[in-house]
Order: sequence, then structure tokens, then C-alpha cells
Amino acid sequence: SESIRLAVIGGDGIGPEVVAEGLKVLDAALAGTDVAVETTDFALGADHWLETGEVLDDATLERLRGFDAILFGAVGAAPGDTRVPLGLIERDLLLKLRFSLDHYVNLRPSLLPAGVASPLAAPGGVDFVVVREGTEGPYVGNGGALRTGTDAEIATEVSVNTAFGVRRVVRYAFEQATARPRTKLTWIHKTNVLVHAGRLWKRIVEEVAADYPQVAVDYLHIDAATIFMVTDPARFDVIVTDNLFGDIITDLAGAVTGGIGLAASGNINPDRTAPSMFEPVHGSAPDIAGQGIADPTAAILSVAIMLESFGQDEAGQRVRDAVAADLSSRGAERRSTAAVGDAIAGAVAARAQ
Amino acid sequence: SESIRLAVIGGDGIGPEVVAEGLKVLDAALAGTDVAVETTDFALGADHWLETGEVLDDATLERLRGFDAILFGAVGAAPGDTRVPLGLIERDLLLKLRFSLDHYVNLRPSLLPAGVASPLAAPGGVDFVVVREGTEGPYVGNGGALRTGTDAEIATEVSVNTAFGVRRVVRYAFEQATARPRTKLTWIHKTNVLVHAGRLWKRIVEEVAADYPQVAVDYLHIDAATIFMVTDPARFDVIVTDNLFGDIITDLAGAVTGGIGLAASGNINPDRTAPSMFEPVHGSAPDIAGQGIADPTAAILSVAIMLESFGQDEAGQRVRDAVAADLSSRGAERRSTAAVGDAIAGAVAARAQ
Ligand SMILES: CC(C)[C@H](C(=O)O)[C@@H](O)C(=O)O
Ligand SMILES: CC(C)[C@H](C(=O)O)[C@@H](O)C(=O)O
Repeated sequence: SESIRLAVIGGDGIGPEVVAEGLKVLDAALAGTDVAVETTDFALGADHWLETGEVLDDATLERLRGFDAILFGAVGAAPGDTRVPLGLIERDLLLKLRFSLDHYVNLRPSLLPAGVASPLAAPGGVDFVVVREGTEGPYVGNGGALRTGTDAEIATEVSVNTAFGVRRVVRYAFEQATARPRTKLTWIHKTNVLVHAGRLWKRIVEEVAADYPQVAVDYLHIDAATIFMVTDPARFDVIVTDNLFGDIITDLAGAVTGGIGLAASGNINPDRTAPSMFEPVHGSAPDIAGQGIADPTAAILSVAIMLESFGQDEAGQRVRDAVAADLSSRGAERRSTAAVGDAIAGAVAARAQ
Repeated sequence: SESIRLAVIGGDGIGPEVVAEGLKVLDAALAGTDVAVETTDFALGADHWLETGEVLDDATLERLRGFDAILFGAVGAAPGDTRVPLGLIERDLLLKLRFSLDHYVNLRPSLLPAGVASPLAAPGGVDFVVVREGTEGPYVGNGGALRTGTDAEIATEVSVNTAFGVRRVVRYAFEQATARPRTKLTWIHKTNVLVHAGRLWKRIVEEVAADYPQVAVDYLHIDAATIFMVTDPARFDVIVTDNLFGDIITDLAGAVTGGIGLAASGNINPDRTAPSMFEPVHGSAPDIAGQGIADPTAAILSVAIMLESFGQDEAGQRVRDAVAADLSSRGAERRSTAAVGDAIAGAVAARAQ
């Protein structure tokens, strides 16, 4: 029998609420297997910072490294909360974890489940996965400001892209494409404007593609990609793109496939040199926090990705099936966060019989 | 009687085809006014570069400065055409014009016309305008690459943002909002990640907002903005954002409001220190070039924006009305580019009676 040590970071807003349901479903999925989970809570986020002045200290980061995986809720203070500096929690907690733990693959599947409405009139059969780069691009935090607060201020942001960083994520995406029936890969960038980074991405994609002759490759500018995402999302199979374009296209993809409340993700370190981290794509939604009405589905589906990362494919599939069944039977009546979690956990347990 | 000197840059692919129809409609709109247009063609674009090795030489740029306005088609070689370096024509022609002629406002209205289908099931009444910054951000072309072509390559892109540049475009956007019934402005950025540029944008928006107490201001991250663009596009009135986010959100907006074939734009120099430039948002579409099947509507609507920039509001409105009438009567049958132009030009002439 195996034991998984799981660090749990609920974070801010609805984060802890949805994570609690994820854990409920995790327990249900592992009951009857020989795998046990041991969770440790970490109180991190805007509230923790307000109380202690610490976002993520070195000792905590080192402790987190010792876990097998991290389940993450959401972070971010309320937009109006002027006590928290802009982006502090996002940069120094969430992005610090992604960068420090070398989560170079941010895996974001998009599937329009049966019975779920899309804002699109004719979405078609949507089932693709975005491989978003997680440790480079405009997210590195390089850049700065000069003459701050004056009329002569200049502020820069530097996007950093390396052959090393692009190759490993592109290779991962080709592996994903190889394992899927359509074996298709679309890479997204803005090569006609961002020519330095664009040339690098193009070269690496072409080099890696030579090792995967069975994969059909195409390219879209990010602006054109947003068009296809609403006119023909079924055209996508595997998408690979940089950190910022991946952020944008996955939110749009989430909206098109039934809402961001269903979008799950894994921040993956494929080399297993540090724990991977699983989190819903949605944010902390301070406007609905504390009311017990947030949809925990994305957190629960993130648990499914986590189970699969442990090789617990059967348990992961049971979670997916239970979610699909729950989604297809949702009516107009609004259930509480806990009620949704209970229902899915119950269905997962029933499926184990 | 007044004479307008208009430079015409058809460009590549379908660019010259749609521009020809724009000119047809321009003539029809100005017939019966005391304004005459004198056009001068400039053969610029990928083909011109292949023939001459010049993209846009200094003498040509200086000549262009002498015109009252520029009508622009589209540029960009076919994606498969390896003779043209990546982004050469986009950067050294289109972006060089926008930057050199100080087109700091890239004005892109989005309106879902009656009778036009949207890919959204329930788009609602969509009528907003995006004020996209045109001379800063990640589009400046700063950055570069080191150890090019090796496994140790690093490529950077630098987004440059200044108080000067942000303030002038934000102020323009507030003026637009003031002139519209809903007096609402949404600014879009990614302030929680791109904190240096984000802080500058936030400060400037707040400073300018103090001068426009009647305008309701809200903020969206670019990822969240793409969600609203498909779930509730009617929420937008005036949007102001940076060059890259503006590129992305306007293509998505175009898709949502009947397709990029209808999306018009003006690259505006509000200070009139150089000619403004009017262009459809769509690209050169090499796949359908030369077949006479491209939709010229976006080019024609760009002419309407141009007419308004000359103070010819009545003529501009006639063009808009003729386009609206044409759109609402479009059937399944596909008309040629010229047939659409003829029909709209005819309707514009008839409306002058
Ligand atoms: C909260 C924010 C920093 C984050 C991101 O931009 O990556 C979020 O939008 C996401 O997509 O996970
Ligand atoms: C062709 C390209 C350089 C251009 C841009 O990115 O600005 C186009 O996409 C646009 O939106 O006008």
C-alpha cells in the first residue's frame, strides 16, 4: 500500500471552498484502492499575508518541495482591496510556486460535456487540450519602471524565451498529440509581430516536429486562434503556446466549453524533480466567496488530473465519469458547493462497487 | 470645394481587391458633395519586396506623410512562402507606418448588425468600440536573440509603456466614452502578472478618470475579458487597452459580431501631425486572394471611419446605412467582391438623392 503526501493550499476567496470538495472526491476515489492520502494544509494567500506579512517564505517553499503533489484553490485579493499590492499574491505565491517547482507544463483540457450549454450556437464536438508553457514568456517578471509616478514614467515587461524552455514544452505537447486519436497539434504565437520569440518558437516546433512525422502540425496567430475558438473550436486537438497566450486562450476555451467553473488544470513538472500542482483555472471570485455557492467542478476535475499523474487512471476515470453524469443531470435549481461535492463523491464511491 | 489627397496601399493578397471596392464607395459617397478625392497608388507589400528588395524606403515614407489620409488593404505573405522572412512585411511596412505616423489610436468599432449571424447563441445588442494603443507595448520590436539557432538560444521581447503614451490613448478613450450614451469605459490589461506595465496603466487610468466623473470605469484582466466577450459582449461600451491585448480582443470581437470580414478600423493620429490610415482588421487571406470572392465590407466600413475623420459625417452615415441595408438582405448566395462593392456604392448614391 502506497501513501501520497498531499499539500493543500486553499488560498483566497472561493479557493478553500472548492478545494474541500476536491478532497472529498479524492477520498471517495481512493477508498478501496491501496493508496492512502495524507493531507497537510497550508494557510497561504492574501489573508495570510495581511496577518503575517509573508507571502511564501523560503522555509515553506522548501517544505512544499517534500510533498508528492499540491492541490491549489485560487489566489487573489478582491479588486477593490487596496491593502494588497497589485499582483503581490499572484506573483509571489502562485507564480513563484509554478516557477520554483519548474511546472513547465500547464495542462488544461477543454471538453464540452454532454448536457452542458455553450455560449456558442453550434459548438460541435469540442475535445482538446492546451499545453501552456509555465516557466517563461512574459510571466517571468523581468522588466521594471523608471521615473515611477511621473509624467516621464517608462515601464517595461520582458518576455524571456529559451530554446531549452520551448523545446521541453513543445516535446511534451507532441507526446500528447501522439497519444490522441487525431494526432494533431496547433501551435499559437504572434510570430509576425513578436519576431524574436516567434522565430525561436518556429524553429523549435519545426525541429521537434521532425521527430513526430505522424503528427499534423499547424500554426495560428493568437488573434486568429481566438476567432477559431468561437467559430470552430472542434478543429483543435492539442494546442501548445506560451505562458501569456496560453492564459488567454484557456480562459476563452473554458468559456466556450460550459464556463470557467468547469475548467481544470495541472501545473506539471514532467521530470518529477518537484511536486506538480493541480488547480482550477478560475480565480478566487471574491464576489461570491463565503456563500457556499461556488461550483467545485473545476477543482474536482483537477483532482482527476492529479489521480492520473499518480498512475491512478481508473480512479481518475471514475471521477470524470461521475462529473459527466452530474453535469448532464444538472437542472435549473442551484445546489450549494458542498451539495455538488457530496453528489459527485457519492457517485464516485458507487462506481467503485 | 475641398480636395482630399488619399494614398492607397492595397498591399498583398485580398488587400487590393477589397480596397478597390472601398474606393468605389468613397466616390459614390462624395458625389454631390463639394469634396473631391485624388488618389495615388502605392505598390507596397510582399510582392513589391520580392521584386525590389525594398519594404518601405525613407523617400516613400516621406511622400506618404504629405497625404491627407491613407487607405490600407492588408499585408502579409502566404504562410508557406519561405522567401519572405517572418514578419518582415508586417513589421517594416504596416507597423512602421503606424509607428512613424504616430497612429497612437487604433479605433475598432464592433457592432452586430441586424440580420447578421453571430457564432454566439444569444449575443444581445452588441455595440462597442475598442481603443487600441498603437505605438507602444509589446509591438515596439525591442528585444532580440542570443546564440541564435543553438540549444542555448534566448530570445526576448520587450514591452515598452510610457506615461506619455498611455495617457494620450486613455484620454482619447474617455472622450469617446463621454460622447456615447452609456458613458462606460472598460480598461483591459493583465495587471496581476505584468505588474510594471500594469501599475502604470492603472495609475494613468485613475488619474484621467478623475477628469471624467461622468464615465463609469471598470477593469478586466485580458483573460477574463475574452470570457465576457463570448458570454456578455453587450456589457462593453468603450474598451481601452494596449497594443497586443487590443489586437487579440478586436479579432475576437470581430468574430462575435459577424466575422472579421466586417471589422473596420482607423489608425488615427488625433494630433493630425501625420495622415491617419484606415484599414480592415482582417489580413491578406492568401488562400482566397485573386478569386474575387473576398468580402469588401470591412474595407468599405473603414472608408466610413475615414469620411467621419474628415468631418464628412453625413457621407459616412450614408455608407454605414448602405452597408447595414446590404447586410440585412444578404442571402445564402455568394456574391463576388465587386458585386458587393457595386451594390453598396449604388445604395450610397441612391441615398444621396
Ligand atoms: C491568477 C493568475 C496569475 C493566473 C495566470 O495568469 O496564470 C490565472 O489567470 C491562471 O490562468 O491560472
Ligand atoms: C498584421 C498584423 C501585424 C496586425 C497586428 O497585429 O496589429 C493585424 O493583426 C491587425 O490587427 O491589424
